[in-house]
Amino acid sequence: MNVPGPDVPDSGRRRGGLTVARIAHLAGVSAPTVSKVLNGRRGVASDTRLRIEQVIQDHGYRRQEQSEPTTPVVEVVFQALDSLWALEIVRGVSEVVRPHGLAVAVSEMGGHLTPDEAWTRDVLARRPAGVVAVSARLTELQSRQLASRAVPLVIVDPSGEPAHQTPSVGATNWNGGLVAARHLLELGHRRIAMINGPDEFLCCRARLDGYRAGSDAAGMSLDPDLIRRAPLYVEGGFAEAHFLLALPDPPTAIFAANDLQALGVYEAARAAGVRIPQELSVVGFDDLPFGQWVGPALTTVRQPLLKMGATAAELVLALADGRKPEHDRIELATTLIVRDSTAPPAVSRPAVRRRRR
Amino acid sequence: MNVPGPDVPDSGRRRGGLTVARIAHLAGVSAPTVSKVLNGRRGVASDTRLRIEQVIQDHGYRRQEQSEPTTPVVEVVFQALDSLWALEIVRGVSEVVRPHGLAVAVSEMGGHLTPDEAWTRDVLARRPAGVVAVSARLTELQSRQLASRAVPLVIVDPSGEPAHQTPSVGATNWNGGLVAARHLLELGHRRIAMINGPDEFLCCRARLDGYRAGSDAAGMSLDPDLIRRAPLYVEGGFAEAHFLLALPDPPTAIFAANDLQALGVYEAARAAGVRIPQELSVVGFDDLPFGQWVGPALTTVRQPLLKMGATAAELVLALADGRKPEHDRIELATTLIVRDSTAPPAVSRPAVRRRRR
Repeated sequence: MNVPGPDVPDSGRRRGGLTVARIAHLAGVSAPTVSKVLNGRRGVASDTRLRIEQVIQDHGYRRQEQSEPTTPVVEVVFQALDSLWALEIVRGVSEVVRPHGLAVAVSEMGGHLTPDEAWTRDVLARRPAGVVAVSARLTELQSRQLASRAVPLVIVDPSGEPAHQTPSVGATNWNGGLVAARHLLELGHRRIAMINGPDEFLCCRARLDGYRAGSDAAGMSLDPDLIRRAPLYVEGGFAEAHFLLALPDPPTAIFAANDLQALGVYEAARAAGVRIPQELSVVGFDDLPFGQWVGPALTTVRQPLLKMGATAAELVLALADGRKPEHDRIELATTLIVRDSTAPPAVSRPAVRRRRR
Repeated sequence: MNVPGPDVPDSGRRRGGLTVARIAHLAGVSAPTVSKVLNGRRGVASDTRLRIEQVIQDHGYRRQEQSEPTTPVVEVVFQALDSLWALEIVRGVSEVVRPHGLAVAVSEMGGHLTPDEAWTRDVLARRPAGVVAVSARLTELQSRQLASRAVPLVIVDPSGEPAHQTPSVGATNWNGGLVAARHLLELGHRRIAMINGPDEFLCCRARLDGYRAGSDAAGMSLDPDLIRRAPLYVEGGFAEAHFLLALPDPPTAIFAANDLQALGVYEAARAAGVRIPQELSVVGFDDLPFGQWVGPALTTVRQPLLKMGATAAELVLALADGRKPEHDRIELATTLIVRDSTAPPAVSRPAVRRRRR
């Protein structure tokens, strides 16, 4: 583990195989300019910055010496810091890194999947012990920039195909979708809707695929009208459930891609005078703390968020130590938690009519 | 603003008026030992550590030179990272410090109000740009340790009397209690219960005092049986509401000290078959995001948590810059948000019986 200490000196010092002076020579710029780029400082034109990055890549310069010091911080970056989901992951990271004297720094990408340039520059300037990027899709350049400054990167819940060789920690989303479908089918539901998250999240795609596999295995074909997509927030679940419950032949069960959406389904059901679970079964995903306190308590697919954060932190520490982790793509198990929001469909519900067709 | 850079050298350098060598001489220890204590390193016996701290205090050594560098991080410490409440404050701090290239590091004190020694040691070792301590009660020694290393400290939502001269940011809790009481009284409630938080939180005491002032102004005396205390979690609200609703003469309204407790009141009401707001009005405190999505939407006293975090961060930056803030005890306004969980009491409820007495 690197210890806290001085910033990188501005010139002359060997960095892996290349000195700052050599990089400057190859890029046709001054040494202080190279130093600025290496340390994430401002005041370098965008094209100059890219040229310097290119030289660093071309000459195989990958890692600084282990003895070069870092800021005693692991940075965790989220799309948005707006859910207990994020907090659980932070706590998991914290439990692992705190005994090492490391702090957990959090930042958000303003709802985007890719951090902006300012974020990269700040992180390079801070030179943290490592970065955990949650549901993030870093550009190839960003991944390379972190790698060339020896800042280990681990993706949690990868939302796209992570850049080649980036270690990642996820949950068995596909399996979670499968068990949700099975649970509802076993209760007797035949007209089941899924409110999924945006296509850009691979985790959501996996949940849908698992759900579809469960339906297929039961010999059920999915009605495309019942597969909806919405943002992973209460509002998204509300809007789509509102639509679904107004159909001439509404579903008897809704599987939502996360607990926040499920809360929106609750709200839409209340507004429509539809009782849960008597007239509508609801399954969420995540198992956030509020799920057991909403009325009725929410049946959901549990993601081990704390464990996911802890596992990502362990990977970061291993990489920071120069160790190659045994596994660098880890999927932790999801679990169905059955509470009070699911029940067999009512006999008088449209599902029965449908079965007669 | 200090910039990231080298750790403090181990000896000889002037620190305020005292050199490390001089401190070592006065404390009768070696210079490297003084350096370890100054930089929060391990391997110094507890009594030696205290002796060195005492020398630093006795000789009026308060701040290192502004040119001495810090880790580009503002640390935010919570009792526990288990609520959206914490996340709102983190976001507020983040909005202010991010443009300065600073990260926000979060840590928790395992449910305690006072961080442990390991926390202090880690923070001193990291030498952050500043510390925001939320609902925390740092010891006199901890405050002095931070001050003598020129680490600015700001308390958010002070839970006890903050150490002399520690700047703080809070909300107008007393006024929040007052407006909650007024709202319920104006609706016609006469038998109102309050579920408060633990006595150790001054913010809760202020809410109770404001609530009492509102009742007194209306010529109502409080029934001591209806003033309850419970942890600021769903479980606490549930247990106390369960007790209150089972009284021979139950309240027609409950004012909870935070939204999590209010959620527990909802659950207890559901379990007891008591409808909100027809048979029971509920007011919370905080205005966390889920409040508008629970059924019925929660009437609550809004704390400007994001703004509180931002204000604390501005104070920290000012102090880090050596500026004396114009105000160093700031209370931001709370606001009553009326939603659907409050209504006039039902005519057939015990409140009517009570009014006839």
